[in-house]
Amino acid sequence: MAEQVCHKADIMAIHDAMDVLNGKWKISILSTMCYYNRRRFSDISTDLAGISNKQLSKELKELEQNKLIERTVLATQPVTVEYSLTEYGWTLQGIIDDLAKWGSTHRKVIMG
Amino acid sequence: MAEQVCHKADIMAIHDAMDVLNGKWKISILSTMCYYNRRRFSDISTDLAGISNKQLSKELKELEQNKLIERTVLATQPVTVEYSLTEYGWTLQGIIDDLAKWGSTHRKVIMG
Repeated sequence: MAEQVCHKADIMAIHDAMDVLNGKWKISILSTMCYYNRRRFSDISTDLAGISNKQLSKELKELEQNKLIERTVLATQPVTVEYSLTEYGWTLQGIIDDLAKWGSTHRKVIMG
Repeated sequence: MAEQVCHKADIMAIHDAMDVLNGKWKISILSTMCYYNRRRFSDISTDLAGISNKQLSKELKELEQNKLIERTVLATQPVTVEYSLTEYGWTLQGIIDDLAKWGSTHRKVIMG
């Protein structure tokens, strides 16, 4: 009989990861800070063509609650708000890079 | 002045990847086939506690349309339908493994 290893814990771990990273925008948003280090709201909005300000606000708030990003208010006139990855957020860098590579190949595949 | 490399293509590539892998279930579903090779509908439904049959059907259909999985009908009595990763689907294996590792650490982080 074939070996039947139980992968329940692995599948649950993926579900936990996707629970934080879910939605079509979260990983893209994290990637902007991964590539540019610090990023303002308006920069991110330009990076991600198609996201509404309301949606971007919501996603940033959730990422902040999950301690993946931090919000820094600079005492400029007018104030500037910058977003960056926390040390914990940076642990996703390898996955983000691999997804970018995969997505780039995928684009070629679907474009024929 | 700091170097300003443009990462528009990388960010777009991630968006393309997440367009196919979006939703909280897709990567979990792919992972069941990655871990067990061939998987029946009812197995996947058990692997992923909480998904409805209707939702699972929809996700499987989308993954099949995107050529990441294939559906095999076995001539048993009654017929058995099995799902497995295509060669293209297997290109996601590294990302799936890394997400499982990250998710497992994340669970420890949120559990304190």
